[in-house]
Amino acid sequence: MVEKVKKRSIKTGLPPGTLVHIGTHHAGESRIRILDYDEQGVREKKEALLAECVPFRDTDSVTWIDIEGLHDLGLLERLGTSYGLHPLILEDILNTDQRAKSDDMEGYIYIVLKMLDFDPVSTEIVSEQVSIVFGRNFVISIQEGREGDLFEPLRERIRNGKGRIRKLGPDYLAYSLLDTIIDHYFIILEKFAERIETLEENLVSDPGPETLHQIHCLKREMIFLRKSAWPLRELIYNLEKSDSNLIQTTTKVYLRDIYDHAVHIIDSIETYRDMLSSMLDIYLSSVSNRMNQVMKVLTIIATIFMPLTFLAGVYGMNFKFMPELGWRWGYPLVLLIMLAVGGVMIYYFNKKNWL
Amino acid sequence: MVEKVKKRSIKTGLPPGTLVHIGTHHAGESRIRILDYDEQGVREKKEALLAECVPFRDTDSVTWIDIEGLHDLGLLERLGTSYGLHPLILEDILNTDQRAKSDDMEGYIYIVLKMLDFDPVSTEIVSEQVSIVFGRNFVISIQEGREGDLFEPLRERIRNGKGRIRKLGPDYLAYSLLDTIIDHYFIILEKFAERIETLEENLVSDPGPETLHQIHCLKREMIFLRKSAWPLRELIYNLEKSDSNLIQTTTKVYLRDIYDHAVHIIDSIETYRDMLSSMLDIYLSSVSNRMNQVMKVLTIIATIFMPLTFLAGVYGMNFKFMPELGWRWGYPLVLLIMLAVGGVMIYYFNKKNWL
Amino acid sequence: MVEKVKKRSIKTGLPPGTLVHIGTHHAGESRIRILDYDEQGVREKKEALLAECVPFRDTDSVTWIDIEGLHDLGLLERLGTSYGLHPLILEDILNTDQRAKSDDMEGYIYIVLKMLDFDPVSTEIVSEQVSIVFGRNFVISIQEGREGDLFEPLRERIRNGKGRIRKLGPDYLAYSLLDTIIDHYFIILEKFAERIETLEENLVSDPGPETLHQIHCLKREMIFLRKSAWPLRELIYNLEKSDSNLIQTTTKVYLRDIYDHAVHIIDSIETYRDMLSSMLDIYLSSVSNRMNQVMKVLTIIATIFMPLTFLAGVYGMNFKFMPELGWRWGYPLVLLIMLAVGGVMIYYFNKKNWL
Amino acid sequence: MVEKVKKRSIKTGLPPGTLVHIGTHHAGESRIRILDYDEQGVREKKEALLAECVPFRDTDSVTWIDIEGLHDLGLLERLGTSYGLHPLILEDILNTDQRAKSDDMEGYIYIVLKMLDFDPVSTEIVSEQVSIVFGRNFVISIQEGREGDLFEPLRERIRNGKGRIRKLGPDYLAYSLLDTIIDHYFIILEKFAERIETLEENLVSDPGPETLHQIHCLKREMIFLRKSAWPLRELIYNLEKSDSNLIQTTTKVYLRDIYDHAVHIIDSIETYRDMLSSMLDIYLSSVSNRMNQVMKVLTIIATIFMPLTFLAGVYGMNFKFMPELGWRWGYPLVLLIMLAVGGVMIYYFNKKNWL
Amino acid sequence: MVEKVKKRSIKTGLPPGTLVHIGTHHAGESRIRILDYDEQGVREKKEALLAECVPFRDTDSVTWIDIEGLHDLGLLERLGTSYGLHPLILEDILNTDQRAKSDDMEGYIYIVLKMLDFDPVSTEIVSEQVSIVFGRNFVISIQEGREGDLFEPLRERIRNGKGRIRKLGPDYLAYSLLDTIIDHYFIILEKFAERIETLEENLVSDPGPETLHQIHCLKREMIFLRKSAWPLRELIYNLEKSDSNLIQTTTKVYLRDIYDHAVHIIDSIETYRDMLSSMLDIYLSSVSNRMNQVMKVLTIIATIFMPLTFLAGVYGMNFKFMPELGWRWGYPLVLLIMLAVGGVMIYYFNKKNWL
Repeated sequence: MVEKVKKRSIKTGLPPGTLVHIGTHHAGESRIRILDYDEQGVREKKEALLAECVPFRDTDSVTWIDIEGLHDLGLLERLGTSYGLHPLILEDILNTDQRAKSDDMEGYIYIVLKMLDFDPVSTEIVSEQVSIVFGRNFVISIQEGREGDLFEPLRERIRNGKGRIRKLGPDYLAYSLLDTIIDHYFIILEKFAERIETLEENLVSDPGPETLHQIHCLKREMIFLRKSAWPLRELIYNLEKSDSNLIQTTTKVYLRDIYDHAVHIIDSIETYRDMLSSMLDIYLSSVSNRMNQVMKVLTIIATIFMPLTFLAGVYGMNFKFMPELGWRWGYPLVLLIMLAVGGVMIYYFNKKNWL
Repeated sequence: MVEKVKKRSIKTGLPPGTLVHIGTHHAGESRIRILDYDEQGVREKKEALLAECVPFRDTDSVTWIDIEGLHDLGLLERLGTSYGLHPLILEDILNTDQRAKSDDMEGYIYIVLKMLDFDPVSTEIVSEQVSIVFGRNFVISIQEGREGDLFEPLRERIRNGKGRIRKLGPDYLAYSLLDTIIDHYFIILEKFAERIETLEENLVSDPGPETLHQIHCLKREMIFLRKSAWPLRELIYNLEKSDSNLIQTTTKVYLRDIYDHAVHIIDSIETYRDMLSSMLDIYLSSVSNRMNQVMKVLTIIATIFMPLTFLAGVYGMNFKFMPELGWRWGYPLVLLIMLAVGGVMIYYFNKKNWL
Repeated sequence: MVEKVKKRSIKTGLPPGTLVHIGTHHAGESRIRILDYDEQGVREKKEALLAECVPFRDTDSVTWIDIEGLHDLGLLERLGTSYGLHPLILEDILNTDQRAKSDDMEGYIYIVLKMLDFDPVSTEIVSEQVSIVFGRNFVISIQEGREGDLFEPLRERIRNGKGRIRKLGPDYLAYSLLDTIIDHYFIILEKFAERIETLEENLVSDPGPETLHQIHCLKREMIFLRKSAWPLRELIYNLEKSDSNLIQTTTKVYLRDIYDHAVHIIDSIETYRDMLSSMLDIYLSSVSNRMNQVMKVLTIIATIFMPLTFLAGVYGMNFKFMPELGWRWGYPLVLLIMLAVGGVMIYYFNKKNWL
Repeated sequence: MVEKVKKRSIKTGLPPGTLVHIGTHHAGESRIRILDYDEQGVREKKEALLAECVPFRDTDSVTWIDIEGLHDLGLLERLGTSYGLHPLILEDILNTDQRAKSDDMEGYIYIVLKMLDFDPVSTEIVSEQVSIVFGRNFVISIQEGREGDLFEPLRERIRNGKGRIRKLGPDYLAYSLLDTIIDHYFIILEKFAERIETLEENLVSDPGPETLHQIHCLKREMIFLRKSAWPLRELIYNLEKSDSNLIQTTTKVYLRDIYDHAVHIIDSIETYRDMLSSMLDIYLSSVSNRMNQVMKVLTIIATIFMPLTFLAGVYGMNFKFMPELGWRWGYPLVLLIMLAVGGVMIYYFNKKNWL
Repeated sequence: MVEKVKKRSIKTGLPPGTLVHIGTHHAGESRIRILDYDEQGVREKKEALLAECVPFRDTDSVTWIDIEGLHDLGLLERLGTSYGLHPLILEDILNTDQRAKSDDMEGYIYIVLKMLDFDPVSTEIVSEQVSIVFGRNFVISIQEGREGDLFEPLRERIRNGKGRIRKLGPDYLAYSLLDTIIDHYFIILEKFAERIETLEENLVSDPGPETLHQIHCLKREMIFLRKSAWPLRELIYNLEKSDSNLIQTTTKVYLRDIYDHAVHIIDSIETYRDMLSSMLDIYLSSVSNRMNQVMKVLTIIATIFMPLTFLAGVYGMNFKFMPELGWRWGYPLVLLIMLAVGGVMIYYFNKKNWL
């Protein structure tokens, strides 16, 4: 999986806060899905219009507005006006080349991070940027708009009223979204670990250029994972230490929990990084080793047969006066000498431990 | 020893606090062992039922509940309810892929870390996760449930009333558990150091592909050790600096002591890390060196015999008019020339220090 | 692109604050361009004289004095006197070998950083030093004087009164200048990323000495980029945390935004650094790999033909008494033996997986 | 010099504070030497008994009790009781595998560090652990008990009343002990630097497998030195910043001085570390270089003589109808052709800069 | 340029504060030069005696005592007594193996650092230790005593009354000394950069063992530079943040300026470090590359001529019954077959991209 170069350049020169979508355009329209709930009940609306969000703005129930797709700039602009979002925040939402971070704004908290998933078909890591904005009584989640969604189990939990979620506020919902996303990092790490293990077995049994290529691929993915995961720690730390009254004390225990998860993810990535670089060293050493092996075979063969061929060459010369050629036992003698030379060479290599 | 990929993925999508056991299922049932003691006496119960813990909950004596095996979710759930443990803590206990940490909760402190042991049969490091929860008058230790246990000497000390342990509270017992576990890290390090020394001797006397393989294995184990040991420092530091009234000032001296141990362990691991990477460098260099040696032999042989064979070949040509062939001393002359050529070559190699 | 060695040495021994221009002299005169604006209107003057700035000094409107070219020392000296700039600041403006930094002086803030651009003709990164001084009602920007300028779109925005810029003070203008410059870092990074991707494809399909040369070039540029970008974070951090009353609270949100950008740039550079060093490792490994391949071919050929040639040599000897030579089937027999020897060799190499 | 693996494992399972000697047992008994002094005079007692220390305990003069040898556990236990040392401190004294540290206990300060010396006979670094305990009016120094002692000059200074030492308290004596030990680190570094310089000359003049072995040895020693020296900085820093009233303000100036020394030592070690790893790189590169050289010789020889030998072989064939064989000038012509082929090859190598 | 091992060992065992000169003895006597100045005038005395300094001690004018040469211990001792310097400071002045640092003593500030210069004759970096002590109305600068001096331009400025220097106090003079020394670091860096650039061109055009040697030399110098420059940052930082009333607020702006210089120097050194290690990598890779090239030539030659020589050998055999030998077109046929074999080989190598 390759982190695409985002065409950030098209924005250069525009005033800050200008809304331009930077990233891959995914097909289809932007879809809005509203889920409004409190302890008593749930009101859900798929394929909603933005206008339908407005009535929920002033109720006390938690409203979760989930938007998929970033290309409808008008929609986002009206959303921004409706919920009082700062132009820079809207700009950040549209720019899919963001570093994960959380911003404590007046009246709401903005979180942006990468949502990773493993595509079972292409066996590649799929990355999508998610922005989460939550305030007193609302959570807005904005996804890039890739097919599918990790949040369905969470919606199901809200609908069924399982767990604590219906009793708690938007900060808990935002935490739940983060928790879901971070849990998927672990899945990626698992797949990663499996591939490292397979690779390691190859490294021992049959290392070849293909092994090298795989190490390289894993290294690239690891670098990408690292870039996505490192800022998570700071993000969650900032949320946990935030003195914003938008985050309840009870939620902070949960944030501390996913903070531990983030640290764990980073730890694991560093461990894999160490293992990969160790594997590359081992690979290089074993290539050298085998080259050594090959060289030894060559040297043994050459060292044995070159003197012998020379000897045969000598008696292949056509001089008139070569007394040995006329000897009765000349030929067997030469053969014996050749045997002796070969034997000495083999003895020498044996002693040098080359055989 | 390979750190197994834990199937954390099966939990994705479940609400936080859902109890799912992540890790290897060890055979047998979960066993509970109760050890209740104060300065006066000891009450012990092996293979106890959870219900038998309840009466100890409100006494002032220290109750140590030691549970082996994580697969009985019902048991843990009831334990959680009984001692007021937060669902996230229960979740952490069950997930055997935890980073070592300590959490200062209300009314109790939660510690989780890896317990390492050296299996003399497989000569491998065996890792097991241990959770320790301690409060005003109880210590709960929960092990994954591998065969055997490092805590028997500690129990013996409690039974015999040797040392300070019977006079002090649950914080000292928790410290003693930590101390026992950390002492075993030193054993692992000793074994590790022995293997590094053996390896180093091999590296000097007879480096081969096997040496490379061993360096790789040690590196992997070292990466694993490092991952287990690094968080220990922070864990103990947090305990020592904790302002919880569950930890007495007198115990803090002991905690500082094992803090020093943890730092020492990390130091040693970093030292071994340096030594291993130095050994790999040396290995690579010596492989290059020997390849050089092999190449020299090949080159010497080729450089001596190729010109000679060519010379023999020349006089093996069948031209009708080759005056030398008819000379009386042609053959001895050619032999002399060959000797001279060979001598010059050997002189040259000698001067170049190749012999 | 190579960071030129700046002839800082010519200044040694002069008292601090002596004005000496250190850097490349760009052709042409120093040009001054004045842009004075407030919410009501804009007054612009290209190719102005310094004296023309003076009347604006005491008005409340924002005056942006943009100077291109550093060789007119007299001009800068008079500017310094006119706006009360400290001699050390003037010295820093003239020395184009500055590390990016911001200085909080009395009455004004001094910022110096590198402005990077991508020259489409030479496909090289072009670097120019920019100093920004801003006070209560003025912004002075001083460029080294390379052809062209990144600030034209900004001027256009001021002229048209688009965005917030006309309503806000000199701090916002200074921020806008910084924002423009930092946005161009992203363009450089994009180009960089494209080249890394191209290089990576080469690395897989056809690595050669050219690939190595390109890795080296990218590494050098990356080192240069890194040196330019690292201090940006600190620069903006200091501005954001500054308690100077020259920076409005509303501007600080914008500064935080470009602080995030700076962190993002540094992150990306570190990622590219990792990728480049990984690519070099892979390159080295694949060179070793191919050497191995070459050696195998050589060894196979030598190992097959050396014994055969020796055999042919034996029967090319001219001994009188070689019974085999007279045999009826001697020749075909020898050919058969040769075939057998060759076959055994090939079988051996096949088993060793060399073919 | 190899850091021995200390048998820490024998202690596992014992309660904390149990006294077990971990380390090499040095021959002979534990020796006690008492030196009691004040501005007026000195009272010295070699080979004293522990009981003889007691009378000094309550005087105001400074008592320096120097113990050599750790195997007399009873002695240490009584010492502990007599001076009120915490069991954990006694444990640390006995365990010779300690990381250097200082502990600020009630009524006394405990310091433990490695004392390094250079054995001129074996040309090896000799390491011995020293514990220093000092209180209001006493200093206890406990050495492992290796032959010889670095403190004799210090004792001489006390006897002669040279310098400030007799006028100042136990903190100054403890500082003097530290100063003596740290001064010996510089001697070790000097020897180290000399060996690095010798090695570097070898590296340039005649690098061989022996050079590699020496680099490896120096690296190992350097890793050991580093492990011993790094904690010194923290140790002295803690002493200097300590708010214990056992350390006078006047002594702190001296502590700051050895703090600078410790930083200097660490700096030097890091420098040597850099130099060693640079040397290894250079070594590897020069091995590659020489292999290249060897390969070139081989290739030149093979490339010149293989075609020539082939040509000679062609005219050694026994075909009946080979018109060239009958030519009058066939033989000289073939010799000419051979010369030409050889010449072309040499020209080619010359152009490729291989000769 | 090699950092000499300083014979620090000769001091071991002496009481702290004992004056021993550690370093190279430079020829000639210690020379004292007095420069006393205030806004009104300058009084200068070359080759002064120490006694001549005394009258200036109690005037308000700034007295600059510049001492060259460290071997006159008596002189330094009297100086120490006269200006109330602490024995440890005198010890530090004499020990030329000091890490750069500043000490805030009572009544004066002590600064020690390395003064680097570039010797145009030997093209080597020349290092000399400078100690600067300044108090209320005096500055003492003590140089090791190498020929020549960097401070002449500064003296000239004082004599001429150019710049601010005559109007300001000893702190500004001390700053000016630091500024002069640090400016010379830039000269060293310039030379360094030039050599790196030359080396880099060599690396591309014609890398050989000489290139390797130069990389090694530059690396060594860089390690030395780094060791000298790193502590400068801390030194100046401490001065700037010092709350000593010996440093005026106006001087602090200047200190901040050279602090930026120090950071810039360290940055540059780190950049060169990166570049050098990158160059070594490239060198290694290109050696491997060229070895590959050599091997290919060898393999091509061997693979073409070995089969041909074998074929010629076969028809050089002396069997009686070899029907081919009697064929009319046997010889041309064999030549054709040889051509074909050669052609196939060349085609194969072409396809493998080896030609």
